[in-house]
Amino acid sequence: MKVAIVGGGAAGMSAASRIKRLNPKMDVHVFEKSNFVSHAPCGIPFFVSGIVRDVEELCAYTADFFREERKINVHLNAEVVDIEYGKLEYVERGKSRTYEWDYLLFSTGASPIKISSSKKVYYVRSIEDAPKIRAVAEKSEKIVVVGCGYIGVEVVDALTNLGKKVVVIEKEYPLPDHDLEISKLLLNEMSKYAEVKSEEAVEEVREVGEKLIVETRENEYEADMVISAIGVKPNVELAKKLGVKLGESGAIRTDPFLRTNVENVYAAGDCAETTNIVTQKPDWIPLAAPANKMGFVAGSNIAGKRMKFPGALKSQMTSFKDLEIGKTGLSEKEAKKHGFDAISVTITSRATAKYIPNGELTVKMVAERNGRVLGVQAIGKGVAKRIYAAASLLYKNAKVEDFFFVDLPFYPPKSPVWDPLVVAARKLMKSI
Amino acid sequence: MKVAIVGGGAAGMSAASRIKRLNPKMDVHVFEKSNFVSHAPCGIPFFVSGIVRDVEELCAYTADFFREERKINVHLNAEVVDIEYGKLEYVERGKSRTYEWDYLLFSTGASPIKISSSKKVYYVRSIEDAPKIRAVAEKSEKIVVVGCGYIGVEVVDALTNLGKKVVVIEKEYPLPDHDLEISKLLLNEMSKYAEVKSEEAVEEVREVGEKLIVETRENEYEADMVISAIGVKPNVELAKKLGVKLGESGAIRTDPFLRTNVENVYAAGDCAETTNIVTQKPDWIPLAAPANKMGFVAGSNIAGKRMKFPGALKSQMTSFKDLEIGKTGLSEKEAKKHGFDAISVTITSRATAKYIPNGELTVKMVAERNGRVLGVQAIGKGVAKRIYAAASLLYKNAKVEDFFFVDLPFYPPKSPVWDPLVVAARKLMKSI
Repeated sequence: MKVAIVGGGAAGMSAASRIKRLNPKMDVHVFEKSNFVSHAPCGIPFFVSGIVRDVEELCAYTADFFREERKINVHLNAEVVDIEYGKLEYVERGKSRTYEWDYLLFSTGASPIKISSSKKVYYVRSIEDAPKIRAVAEKSEKIVVVGCGYIGVEVVDALTNLGKKVVVIEKEYPLPDHDLEISKLLLNEMSKYAEVKSEEAVEEVREVGEKLIVETRENEYEADMVISAIGVKPNVELAKKLGVKLGESGAIRTDPFLRTNVENVYAAGDCAETTNIVTQKPDWIPLAAPANKMGFVAGSNIAGKRMKFPGALKSQMTSFKDLEIGKTGLSEKEAKKHGFDAISVTITSRATAKYIPNGELTVKMVAERNGRVLGVQAIGKGVAKRIYAAASLLYKNAKVEDFFFVDLPFYPPKSPVWDPLVVAARKLMKSI
Repeated sequence: MKVAIVGGGAAGMSAASRIKRLNPKMDVHVFEKSNFVSHAPCGIPFFVSGIVRDVEELCAYTADFFREERKINVHLNAEVVDIEYGKLEYVERGKSRTYEWDYLLFSTGASPIKISSSKKVYYVRSIEDAPKIRAVAEKSEKIVVVGCGYIGVEVVDALTNLGKKVVVIEKEYPLPDHDLEISKLLLNEMSKYAEVKSEEAVEEVREVGEKLIVETRENEYEADMVISAIGVKPNVELAKKLGVKLGESGAIRTDPFLRTNVENVYAAGDCAETTNIVTQKPDWIPLAAPANKMGFVAGSNIAGKRMKFPGALKSQMTSFKDLEIGKTGLSEKEAKKHGFDAISVTITSRATAKYIPNGELTVKMVAERNGRVLGVQAIGKGVAKRIYAAASLLYKNAKVEDFFFVDLPFYPPKSPVWDPLVVAARKLMKSI
């Protein structure tokens, strides 16, 4: 049995490894356009800031590791240029070749949405671009960052740590999928280090001599460098060519086994839809942790071990300086967009015992009026453990009273005896 | 309606506050033997180490706050000396008085198990003793700590931070309710700072001049001070007098509404049993977080708002120097003692992304052979968030595959893309 895996990122390599572990006799070929496999674009901001020294560190394993240890046929710099049922054509180091497959996995990932044709506008997506971004940033005095989602926040954090003058332009508010209670706290903190322009949409980026001009409806900003992080779109051209159906999001529609509508063709990772565990509807959640697990599940199914992927919660975490931010499930505005009769509470509470003070955090909890929790957002100190707990409870379909009664550990330097999650739940219980 | 609350610790004050909030017309009297209410004995090690400066900081609120803000009649230095149905007798500042009650809550807490009659042996329980412990410790050169549960670990941490020469004697291994895989890692770390004597039982403590001699079967240890933290026993004398039934643990038996067998008599906190969520059997879990919630629930029920307490997981967390340790649910030995057909896995994994290394942690996951998780223990870096997640999943009766599929947030400086909990679950899934 011959397996073609198109795309050697997290999902693709996770699938390939799983297949070879379960069924070593399967012939697995991975076709990766770039020079790296199992690359982690989420690490790029930490490479730009200098925390990560070598770009190779951003790969979980090398191609040789997969070839030698896992007996996977990895093709680097190998772009799949054409596809039909049972056969694909790829170009590897200038030479065109074909590979016949019985099973195929699309793990083609996602690409940044472009805002300009200028080559001086950089996108935080391919680890191959990372050294260039760092080098240009080092020489730049003033940098405009367009888009303030998670990646935007981390890039601004990195650039301001390097002492750069940064303007960040976001058409909504920083972390636009969060509710304003959270975004505004982040905005306050970011404004101490960078010029933050909220509710401003970039219309054009022009090169003027050595400089770039970023034009919004309201203003013009001159910069030595522009970094754009306004979002990504799924890479689905090959899938479409094969007759694979897309979902409403534009990503590949999958069933719980991560099968597409085409027999023996699977999809996993950033190019594919999955189920949103909270809404129980198809959703496109291009994040690294679900991508890895989707690869694992798709690989299991290809190798003949049936396994369902339950979906994802879109759990996320980041930080700006000492401010941690996290979210799992839906924000209130997302909940309302999905038609939920949502109620919410926002509390600010000590992150640790009163007698060992170490900052506070703000928690917003969103629930259906019947009591089921739809999402939790948090910002401040000690956010990670609360988002870990919240994601776990949401995963199990928890109600507000579960957030109150869950027996979280108490340890004075790390948590108060009434955990902020419990405090939020206690307050929200009154509305149910 | 007149309510008597015997004991003004976490559970008692939580109940009193809840009653007055729900039903301000109820007359609530709290009888507290010591000079403090809502005291937090868990904070004592941090007072000994000097992190907490004033002993008053170890109280969530003052008696005056409860009197003035919450209209609760707080009696300090007021010991209840006799009790009968509908009436109790107490001694307040030398004067004997009576109070007639319609509802009564036992929140009498627990007391340390004594190992000697010597006044030079200190127990880490009453915050009134804390200043004495700190003062004597400061003057002492060599201190023997008996018992190495959570409190013992924290006391040894505090004393070694003060530069004291410490011997710690534990009849099993450090953190005796943990499995050996965890205890031995802690033992290694503690041994760098203190002399740790495992599997040694203290037989006697004698005063010899200014010194103390701690005698075990194997050895004798001379010390300037002895601190004992071998455990606590529930304070149930008054409850017995009233005909209240105790459970097998010796603590007060309660139903899910925290009622005792005697009508209108409730029990909450360290003197009472609750349900162990994992075993679904009665258990005695004398910890601060459940105590507070038990008080809340007992208070609700007394005030006429029916509410069930679901029980607790015995979730705990502590640290020794930079080593964090946590546990929720059952260890493997506890699981076997309860008759479960337990399987387990122990893994060591990076706490953060490979490219932003920040230590590792060891996770032990224990499950029933049918897949239900019974408990998680962890030691190392980044333990808190994993125990938060594990407690949340255990609370919802999760299976090993839930631990694999739960969508935990990925953020390179805080967590790897395959979280250690997920890695442990992936490995344990193979045995199911």
